[in-house]
Amino acid sequence: MTRRRHLTADDYFNGVREHNLSVFAQALTVIESSSDRHRLIAEELLTRLLPWTGNALRIGITGVPGVGKSTFIESLGMLLIRRGMRVAVLAVDPSSGVSGGSILGDKTRMNELASQDNAFIRPSPAAGTLGGVANKTRETMFIAEAAGYDVILVETVGVGQSETMVCDMTDCFLALMLPGAGDELQGIKRGLLELADVIAVNKADGDNRRAAELAARQYHSALESLTGHDSDKAPTILTCSALDDSGIDSVWEAIEKKCERRRETGEFSERRQKQNLRWLWALVDEQLREAIKKHPVVRQIYSDIEQQVLDGQMPAAAGANKIFAALSLGGSGQ
Amino acid sequence: MTRRRHLTADDYFNGVREHNLSVFAQALTVIESSSDRHRLIAEELLTRLLPWTGNALRIGITGVPGVGKSTFIESLGMLLIRRGMRVAVLAVDPSSGVSGGSILGDKTRMNELASQDNAFIRPSPAAGTLGGVANKTRETMFIAEAAGYDVILVETVGVGQSETMVCDMTDCFLALMLPGAGDELQGIKRGLLELADVIAVNKADGDNRRAAELAARQYHSALESLTGHDSDKAPTILTCSALDDSGIDSVWEAIEKKCERRRETGEFSERRQKQNLRWLWALVDEQLREAIKKHPVVRQIYSDIEQQVLDGQMPAAAGANKIFAALSLGGSGQ
Repeated sequence: MTRRRHLTADDYFNGVREHNLSVFAQALTVIESSSDRHRLIAEELLTRLLPWTGNALRIGITGVPGVGKSTFIESLGMLLIRRGMRVAVLAVDPSSGVSGGSILGDKTRMNELASQDNAFIRPSPAAGTLGGVANKTRETMFIAEAAGYDVILVETVGVGQSETMVCDMTDCFLALMLPGAGDELQGIKRGLLELADVIAVNKADGDNRRAAELAARQYHSALESLTGHDSDKAPTILTCSALDDSGIDSVWEAIEKKCERRRETGEFSERRQKQNLRWLWALVDEQLREAIKKHPVVRQIYSDIEQQVLDGQMPAAAGANKIFAALSLGGSGQ
Repeated sequence: MTRRRHLTADDYFNGVREHNLSVFAQALTVIESSSDRHRLIAEELLTRLLPWTGNALRIGITGVPGVGKSTFIESLGMLLIRRGMRVAVLAVDPSSGVSGGSILGDKTRMNELASQDNAFIRPSPAAGTLGGVANKTRETMFIAEAAGYDVILVETVGVGQSETMVCDMTDCFLALMLPGAGDELQGIKRGLLELADVIAVNKADGDNRRAAELAARQYHSALESLTGHDSDKAPTILTCSALDDSGIDSVWEAIEKKCERRRETGEFSERRQKQNLRWLWALVDEQLREAIKKHPVVRQIYSDIEQQVLDGQMPAAAGANKIFAALSLGGSGQ
């Protein structure tokens, strides 16, 4: 295991299964790499590890900057570790597109959790060093599961498509909210309602306690009007304080309950199956998009076509035909 | 114009611009066709007509079956025609994937509107007759704009991705809701909240009137809590009765107001530009997906790969690599 640059898929496989942290970390780097050699190793490694994946609970966590997400994750992570679980924290960072780890999951912000043997916090990958960091959070999650982590926390911030992405790779999605000021709630992003299984109003401590409780009640009644009284569909709404370490256990209980209910109805595994299939085609799309933009003929025309479509000088259909024709793929004729 | 099977792009162009209804209808058939010959004509036609598109208001309308959508559209259509406008009704039908016209927009359900010279209701295309009906509602809309229609109503039902698609090709999105029974609202689909600009509780007539008004108030207060007091973001909520032909003018006024506000902020044209660009790449994706599944090598392997990924026997990343490799596209190496 000392010839770092020459590890084989076999070495990675054994290292991950034996929970060798150094090999585990290197395996994640290989997964994120887009070099052809690494891609082959990654494929073999993922295929061999597949039987050992799927046993963790996968929890997505979102919240705007300032909501106290790091403190919350540290508090939740410590709770789980005290209960004998092993916890991995990954992140999807919307600012750099999507990556396997991120500044969000920065170890320095979760000192206590980071120092635990049973915790793994994915630090930022050095973007670009291996030819571009692609969207590999899901694969990173599988490797972490095979390495024996029981709970995978995937964090993101409420920007763009990152919440949808995280929701589509997890079993349960938690939204952290700020208490409103006075009797006025801060606006909730409308798209979030579709995703959240549990909504926790954080910072329910000190002077904010009452505001947080009021906010929770308002969310509750608003969501009940909108979603009806179907408790399977409506998100569970709670307050908590990551700072005081209070209410975190209730949040975890709500998450477990949602997951249990989904196991009972069969929705749990069905959801994962559908996620797998969508991921397959999303990856094909992603590879095709990359390939298209690097294609010798297409690369010369696509930005021009994009501009003309944007300016309304070319119909999108005509632009798409031109890009497609430039690829000269076989098998598409009628 | 009598040699029906040999119309050129020129003929179609002139026919559409002169508002020749027979040629217009044939042009839509060409647009929906996926034969290579038609694709070329469609591309030329769309390109030439482009300067005459974009002047219509594009309105998306959704609602579950039973909400009275046809009656509402007839009532709104007649109102617009009385005000001197020309109205086209298109449909996105989630049951058959997505199509340029649909059973939803069946003429027989809108007798009065269908008999107007200034109305066009796209009847169901004969699916499959031209080698598969692709997703061409947007292109159909452009042709209708070039033919001089002032308002394009694109209807759909609240199923799957069809609402998102319709929202992404229109300027303003209207959701028709049923009055709740008693003081209990029917659950609103959570995803709809993100899309709707105007929510109209229909069937506010007779015994339902009070229930409709109560429902509107409840939606209003629930949405206000959730979206905050930003009236630009929160949907406008109204009641109407398509049956009594009452409140339809207020719904149209609310739609116009939303559009006007978006013009003032510049969001209106920005939204259309972004829609164009997303459409470009969606079409490239769609063509690639089609081509992939027809590709001589890929067609032999993809359903097997899909099944293995679904069963959790193959990592999605490995499946994607296999499909991508089978395509043997150039220009993708590092």
